[in-house]
Order: sequence, then C-alpha cells, then structure tokens
Amino acid sequence: VAKRLEKFKTTIFTQMSILAVKHGAINLGQGFPNFDGPDFVKEAAIQAIKDGKNQYARAYGIPELNSAIAARFGEDTGLVVDPEKEVTVTSGCTEAIAAAMLGLINPGDEVILFAPFYDSYEATLSMAGAKIKGITLRPPDFSIPLEELKAAVTNKTRAILMNTPHNPTGKMFTREELETIASLCIENDVLVFSDEVYDKLAFEMDHISIASLPGMYERTVTMNSLGKTFSLTGWKIGWAIAPPHLTWGVRQAHSYLTFATSTPAQWAAVAALKAPESYFKELKRDYNAKKEILVKGLKEVGFKVFPSSGTYFVVADHTPFGLENDVAFCEYLIEEVGVVAIPTSVFYLKPEEGKNLVRFAFCKDEETLRGAIERMKQKL
Amino acid sequence: VAKRLEKFKTTIFTQMSILAVKHGAINLGQGFPNFDGPDFVKEAAIQAIKDGKNQYARAYGIPELNSAIAARFGEDTGLVVDPEKEVTVTSGCTEAIAAAMLGLINPGDEVILFAPFYDSYEATLSMAGAKIKGITLRPPDFSIPLEELKAAVTNKTRAILMNTPHNPTGKMFTREELETIASLCIENDVLVFSDEVYDKLAFEMDHISIASLPGMYERTVTMNSLGKTFSLTGWKIGWAIAPPHLTWGVRQAHSYLTFATSTPAQWAAVAALKAPESYFKELKRDYNAKKEILVKGLKEVGFKVFPSSGTYFVVADHTPFGLENDVAFCEYLIEEVGVVAIPTSVFYLKPEEGKNLVRFAFCKDEETLRGAIERMKQKL
Ligand SMILES: CSCCC(=O)C(=O)O
Ligand SMILES: CSCCC(=O)C(=O)O
Repeated sequence: VAKRLEKFKTTIFTQMSILAVKHGAINLGQGFPNFDGPDFVKEAAIQAIKDGKNQYARAYGIPELNSAIAARFGEDTGLVVDPEKEVTVTSGCTEAIAAAMLGLINPGDEVILFAPFYDSYEATLSMAGAKIKGITLRPPDFSIPLEELKAAVTNKTRAILMNTPHNPTGKMFTREELETIASLCIENDVLVFSDEVYDKLAFEMDHISIASLPGMYERTVTMNSLGKTFSLTGWKIGWAIAPPHLTWGVRQAHSYLTFATSTPAQWAAVAALKAPESYFKELKRDYNAKKEILVKGLKEVGFKVFPSSGTYFVVADHTPFGLENDVAFCEYLIEEVGVVAIPTSVFYLKPEEGKNLVRFAFCKDEETLRGAIERMKQKL
Repeated sequence: VAKRLEKFKTTIFTQMSILAVKHGAINLGQGFPNFDGPDFVKEAAIQAIKDGKNQYARAYGIPELNSAIAARFGEDTGLVVDPEKEVTVTSGCTEAIAAAMLGLINPGDEVILFAPFYDSYEATLSMAGAKIKGITLRPPDFSIPLEELKAAVTNKTRAILMNTPHNPTGKMFTREELETIASLCIENDVLVFSDEVYDKLAFEMDHISIASLPGMYERTVTMNSLGKTFSLTGWKIGWAIAPPHLTWGVRQAHSYLTFATSTPAQWAAVAALKAPESYFKELKRDYNAKKEILVKGLKEVGFKVFPSSGTYFVVADHTPFGLENDVAFCEYLIEEVGVVAIPTSVFYLKPEEGKNLVRFAFCKDEETLRGAIERMKQKL
C-alpha cells in the first residue's frame, strides 16, 4: 500500500457491518436505513433505465440535476448559484470530499479538522498531502473551543473542513460558531469545505449552511448527497457546490477519479430534489420519533446519552458498563449482546479522546430499535 | 486548482461531447453507444431497485458480484481468484485506475506508460506523484518498440500501466509484446496495471490478460468494467482483480474515494456477467460489422485508416485534408462538416506525436455511422 494510506485500517463501517452479519447482531452501526427510499424516487430511476438513459452522463452532471441541485440549495439558503458553473455531481458525498481535497489542496497545506470526524476526511487529506491540525469538540455539547480555534487559524491555514449536522456526535454548529469560523476564514483567506449531508435531519434548530454567511460563498465548497435525505444510501449520488474557481478544482479531480456518476440515478435525483416540503417535514418527524425511542431506551439501559440535535446518530458514554474502552465495549456488545455500535476513538486524531464514547444509529425501523434496546437491557 | 492537476484541461471527451450537442454534430467522439444495453441487465437493475436493494453495498462489492467477477475472469484466463480477497468493485474502471494509483504508487515512483494513452492515466499518476516515463507506440501497427522498453525498465521502475485492446488506437498487444513486458517485470520486480475494458471487443485475435502469463498474476492489477461489454457506459460499474497484497492498496484508496458503488447496478452486473457465451459472440460480430462500415467509409472519404484489431475505436490520418493538426482538423470537422472525432495529441506526452491522427468511435448504429460518412464525403 502507498505511504499516504499506510496508517489507515479497513474503514470501521466495513469492519462493523461485516461483524454484524457474522454474529447476527442488530446493526446500529453503519449509517444506512433498514427501510427503503420513497417510491417516487425509485420509480424515476426505473423509468430512466427503461427510457434508455444508460450512457455516460456529462462528467459534472446531467444539466437537469445540476439545475435541481442549484434550485434546492437556493431554496434552502437564499443563494443564487449557477448550475452550469458551480455544481458538480459526484459518486456520493465521499467522492465530493475526495475531489475537493485532491483538486484544491497542495502537499504541505494546513487544514483544520474538528475531531471527532468522518474517517474519509483524514484519509483524503493524507492523499492530498495536507498537514492536519485537529480541534477537539468539547463534550457534553461538543462545542467548538473558540479560543483554541482562533489561535489555530493563521495565514498558513489553507482550509477548514467541517460537518454540520455533525457525524458522529449529532451536534449542530451554532450561529455563533459559524460566525466565528466565517470571520476567521475571511480574515485569513481560508477556504471552507462543508459536509452537510445531514442538513435535512436537523431536529432542534434550522440547519445553517456556512456558505450563506456574508462573504463566505466565494470561499466555500458545500457538499451534500441524496443518500441520507432519501434513504437511498446505496445509490451514491452526491454533489459539491462552489464558486467557479473552486468548482474547477473539484471538477478536474472528479473527472479523473470517476469521470461521471450513474446516469439513471441522476435522473432519479432530479425527481427526488423536487419533493414537496411535506416530504422533508415528515422525514424529520419520523426521525425525531426514532431518536426519542433510542435515546429513552439507551438511558434506561444505563448509558449516559449526549444530546443529538441533528443527523441520525447519537453518542453515548459506555463507562457505566465497566469495559476498558470503546473498542472493547463494541466488541463485547456485538459478541455478547448482539448489537452493533461504532467506537468513536477511530474518529479522533488522539484515539484516547474517544475511548468513553460509542455511536448508535437510529435510521432503523421501530422494531429494530426496540429489539436492540431489549437485548441491551437483558445482557448489559 | 491543486498543482497536481494544474496542467490538465477539461477532459477531451467532455469538451467534444459538449461541442457535439452545441453544433448538432454526429458524435463519433466519446466512446459511448447510441443504442441501449440488453434488457436482461436492465431488468435485473429494475428488480434490485424494486426489491429494496438500495442501501450501501459492502465497500469492496456485494459478495455475489465479487464472485461473478472472479468466475468470469476464471473462465477467460484460467486463473483461480478469491472473490473475497482479490476483487474490488469500483465506480467504473476510471475509479479502479485512480484507486490503483493512489493506493499503490508513492511520490517519486517511476511508472511506464505507453503513448497514446487514456487521459486519466497521466492525471491519476500525477495525483499519486509518480514520475512518468513514456514509450510511444509505433505506427502503422502501434507496436511497442521493444528495445526502447527494455532500456526503460530498470530497478527504479515501480510499475507499467498498460491497456489492451488499446484506446485510442485499437491495437492489441501481441503475445510477444506481453511476454517481453512480463519478463522485464519479473526481472526488475515491477507491477503491472492492466486496463482491459475492451477485452470482449477483440476482432483479429483472442484477448490475452497479462495476469495469465507465468509469474505475472502476483504482480498485476487487472481492471475492467461493465460499460463497454454491456453497452451501459452510464452505470459506472468497474473492478480491479489483484492478489491480496495489491488488493489491499486498491481497496484502501477506493474506501476513501467513493466508499462503495451503486448497489442496484451491482446486482445488475451479477446478471450481466452470467450472460451466455452467445451474448459475447454476437456483440463481437455486431461490432465487427460496424467497424467495417466505418473503416470502408473513412477510406472512401480519403483518410488513411490504421488497422484496429480491438476496442470500438479506429484511428485515421487526417493529413490528406490539409488542416494544420489534429485539433484544427477536429474543429473543422465539427463546425463545417458536423461530425465529432477526438484529436489524439492530448493522449501523448509529446502532443506533436499525435498531430496527424484522429480517433473515430464506431459504437453507433449503422445509420449514424453512414450519416457521418455521408457528411464527410460531401464536405471534406
Ligand atoms: C460511507 S460509510 C457510512 C457513512 C455513514 O453514514 C456513517 O457514518 O455510518
Ligand atoms: C470516460 S470518457 C470516455 C471513455 C472512452 O471510452 C473514450 O475513450 O471515449
């Protein structure tokens, strides 16, 4: 393996999902729904296949999808973006992240990352040769230590890579935090890469795209996807929205990483993004109900549960159960209890910072959530 | 844009396909069929979507597809590969190439490339920080200058990146050439990355996978895809086959570039790869007929046409028409004649080596091919 990837292990999601199958455990690990996406989106994909929309899409997206993405972003943020010059369709948000890093970051560039973080951030920054500076979010609310952030951002900083609503913690960046990031970026001429795939799963407050703050659009790559919002994580449709000079870098990397993204899935995404507001409302209501079931259950089991205001994840402190660390706890949970959770230490630059915390996903039907709680009540 | 991509332009395929639409030109440029893939494969995708196979696949492929790929490769080459440890499903062969480079090549590693070459090779080698050594194939048959190759391969060489049947020229590497490459690689401990996406479009001789030569499997990453063989270029299903130690590098890069590939398209690929031999025979017969139409027509128009023994491309010398170079000729062809071809100079490290050559694709229905020839006869 090349040196740039030497330190990385098989992704924790792959490890855990394989163990889930092996042990017949209830999988509250990897973040995919165990229910299906909406029929109108599936129908649109089927129609596209039948209609022969099966050849290469334009590399940066079929025009109709670029437009639908721009329109939805416009409705959400009030920003007017040019679908032809500022939108790039990618094979999932994971590819958007990789393309942004490889397309815009040079070896030695300093990039700030908030820990804990989705594991591809560190790996793709390593592929790009970036120097990573970590800022650890502070429990219990996983707030940004603003003074530490201010000290970290200098004129050597090339970019901040952020994620709100935040995986794995469920934290949403507050307006104050976003404004601080914005003013630091403007002052120091820093780019922002913002992963907002959980934007429609915001329970306690409205999601704010950092690109919508004054002076920020021109320095921000906003990344999103279809998977979480439409319960179709296996379709791998993502995108990046950025001003033309940043889009150029993203598109160049994307052209050579995958060239283009599934044509019929893009047509389905056009239909999806035109969903009525009621779809998004109902999604949020459903997920809020699931969250309440899981949080209540975890508390009854004896976990200390951290507040989750967005995403379909919740983080809990496993120390009441006496296992050595998060990895040992998750192994015990799979093998002895039959439930899969994700250890969080893999999401930290200093793994010990995550040793008390495990992540549970609640993108599962009620029965599955209740079944997992039942097992934990009986065997933990 | 990051320095690693600074020298690259918008891919020629994107440029040309956009111009084709703009000028209403007949597109014999980018390599995608203007007819649809087979119903049994489309039906399998539709069934998968209906059956709710819409969440994340396993990162390196659904087990059924890994097995189907191993089985097909076994039938084609006689090699027994472990589907669980030696096969990685990717988002098209383009991603397999990127993952192989980023997963296995270190900055400064020397990699040998045969010019002309598919443009993503140079770009992904640049992302990996490789030092590229080019060997130019010799017209009229685009043979490998074997003495030059022998002199180029040293113990500093990390890998050879090759492609047979060869895009853009239609050349197929001969057994003698493959054996020379193999013995050089074994002698100097060199890896081979072999892009074989046109393996089923081999007209004059049987395709030979270099991995099947003695001592080669252990040092070869064989890459292929669904798109060309099943006329579904927009589905973006590709794969890499390699021994476990090389598969590890490919999988690690793949995990962080895209994570996983479209689940319903993977199920369709399982069905596709189980196609009866008659499917592949008929495909070859159909394409051979198309090739004959195009080659005959181009000759009648006045081109000097180079022999194409594989792929769905043919290369021709445009100099009888008096335009300055391949790019000028292709511009004239689009704007004045209404036909799109691909200039080949972009596929050379030294662009002037391609200045007389343009590539035509014959993955088009007969009427389209005849229409393009008619236009050229009238206006060239
Ligand atoms: C791409 S792996 C799963 C990603 C995700 O949503 C998670 O954090 O579980
Ligand atoms: C991925 S772009 C088109 C690739 C191809 O087959 C070509 O060379 O035209």
